[in-house]
Amino acid sequence: MNKEQFIIENYFLPLADNRESLRLKNDAAFLRDKNLVISTDMMIEGQHFTKKHNPETLAKKLLRINLSDIAAMGADPLGFLLNVAIPNVDYDKWLKLFVRGLKDDMKKYKLKLFGGDMSCSKKVFLSVTILGKTKKYSHLKNFTESNSDIYVTGNIGDAGLGLKINQKMPSFNCSKVCKQRLINKHLIPSPRLNIGRLLLNKVEFCTDISDGLIEELLVISKRSKKQVNIFLENIPISPETQEVLSKNKQKEVWETILFGGEDYELLFSLKPNKNLERYKEKITKIGFFSDGSGVRIYDKDGNQFLTKKRGFSHF
Amino acid sequence: MNKEQFIIENYFLPLADNRESLRLKNDAAFLRDKNLVISTDMMIEGQHFTKKHNPETLAKKLLRINLSDIAAMGADPLGFLLNVAIPNVDYDKWLKLFVRGLKDDMKKYKLKLFGGDMSCSKKVFLSVTILGKTKKYSHLKNFTESNSDIYVTGNIGDAGLGLKINQKMPSFNCSKVCKQRLINKHLIPSPRLNIGRLLLNKVEFCTDISDGLIEELLVISKRSKKQVNIFLENIPISPETQEVLSKNKQKEVWETILFGGEDYELLFSLKPNKNLERYKEKITKIGFFSDGSGVRIYDKDGNQFLTKKRGFSHF
Repeated sequence: MNKEQFIIENYFLPLADNRESLRLKNDAAFLRDKNLVISTDMMIEGQHFTKKHNPETLAKKLLRINLSDIAAMGADPLGFLLNVAIPNVDYDKWLKLFVRGLKDDMKKYKLKLFGGDMSCSKKVFLSVTILGKTKKYSHLKNFTESNSDIYVTGNIGDAGLGLKINQKMPSFNCSKVCKQRLINKHLIPSPRLNIGRLLLNKVEFCTDISDGLIEELLVISKRSKKQVNIFLENIPISPETQEVLSKNKQKEVWETILFGGEDYELLFSLKPNKNLERYKEKITKIGFFSDGSGVRIYDKDGNQFLTKKRGFSHF
Repeated sequence: MNKEQFIIENYFLPLADNRESLRLKNDAAFLRDKNLVISTDMMIEGQHFTKKHNPETLAKKLLRINLSDIAAMGADPLGFLLNVAIPNVDYDKWLKLFVRGLKDDMKKYKLKLFGGDMSCSKKVFLSVTILGKTKKYSHLKNFTESNSDIYVTGNIGDAGLGLKINQKMPSFNCSKVCKQRLINKHLIPSPRLNIGRLLLNKVEFCTDISDGLIEELLVISKRSKKQVNIFLENIPISPETQEVLSKNKQKEVWETILFGGEDYELLFSLKPNKNLERYKEKITKIGFFSDGSGVRIYDKDGNQFLTKKRGFSHF
């Protein structure tokens, strides 16, 4: 359990003893009688981004990390409230770019701005509370009691590699084009809204991968009292990540793929021997649950991939 | 118009072209088909409070400034989402006190914690998004087209004086008991939920006084294209504020009463010659609208109270 989860479980969970909160174990709260899901995420200068960060990209990421929670619940985007705290000097250019980013993504995702608050602050602080519409169902289950199969959408690892490449720690070797693509994946994630909806009522749990694949699996493993078994060769990676793997120490790259945060792909499970229909979205089976505990990662020779790394946390 | 309002009108209002936002002119957004109002407010270290601030009191104020928006809409508190960013050292004592403050007020106001986000940050950053239930009505009108009477709940000025006394700028003379009571009014406001509901469908506009009485009246005067006339001797003040007035330069104290922020009383209007029934809450008529523009303040001799002061703004 990372520090953020520890604090949530120990300090805030005792306050959230109501049906709507889903015991703080899902990606959003669920107001069943209103057919709404609601979630909030923040981004803080120095913690989630630096002063150099383009405000237009920042606005998009802010909306999209919130949209990813809506996707994980299988809901449709409805609208959001926005908190913006910025320095009270030279804010015109910053705000123009920020608003342009918001506007583009509000159109793209059919999102309405409902309200917000504005303040001055030395460091930029941003938060969004997002509302999503549901029909009959939402992804409410957050564990498995079966030896189910484990799936992910899209590719894993691009955002984590992009972050490290952007911060030059460590400086992975790869082509300029490759670097830029990975950095872009880190800067502007793609919330999996469509597939989130399509999977409603077909899968067990469904969550988005924000803290790194293994960290998310550890949480679910603990909650489900099951062992997670993952196969490196099944983990879907992009051509760019493939390039980084081929030109650098494989272990170090794999650690970033598995533990790097902010993929914002969906992670879900399907009861054993059940199959999903074909979707236009990429979906990959990466492993399965078994009796036991913890997360085991196997390489192509069937050996355990050992690492001391832990997941990604903003705390 | 203060800087905060300027930024909202110029940068964000163009994005909020939807029915629910009420054009960002009310204290909360209104989701009519869900019978919900929703609003968000933030509190930032260095801007809204200092490191010395007791986290228990901070938690209560955070909830109550949000509850005040629910009161201004005439709604019932339902639940909230919470963003907390704090330094990642020595957080145990801070969090314990903060959670205790939340817990007390969640019980007092029947509020549910739905969810939130947690992050690390050098400076404390807090935000709450609050949901309120409505029945048929909400306070949706935000101006008057009549020469209506202007009313406020409770007393005006305590919080503004409490802030100045706390910051020792200027250092007003008054007894120790008086100082402490005024500081407490600043630290822990009382959202006027009951009277907010009782006034539904009886008054014209209804808003809470967060940026100072005159600043709020200026906004409504402009929006209504009416002149606001206010009488100093009608403005309700507490015995403590009366004591400060009697022991200091009256002009300076009145400026703080009129322009100091964070009263969180309700400000509303009633068509001319209409009367309100009696409530157990204190309600005072402080003036009226007339044809014209701007805000005029008259002293007991009928002379205009002139001041260069402007309202309170967090930007």
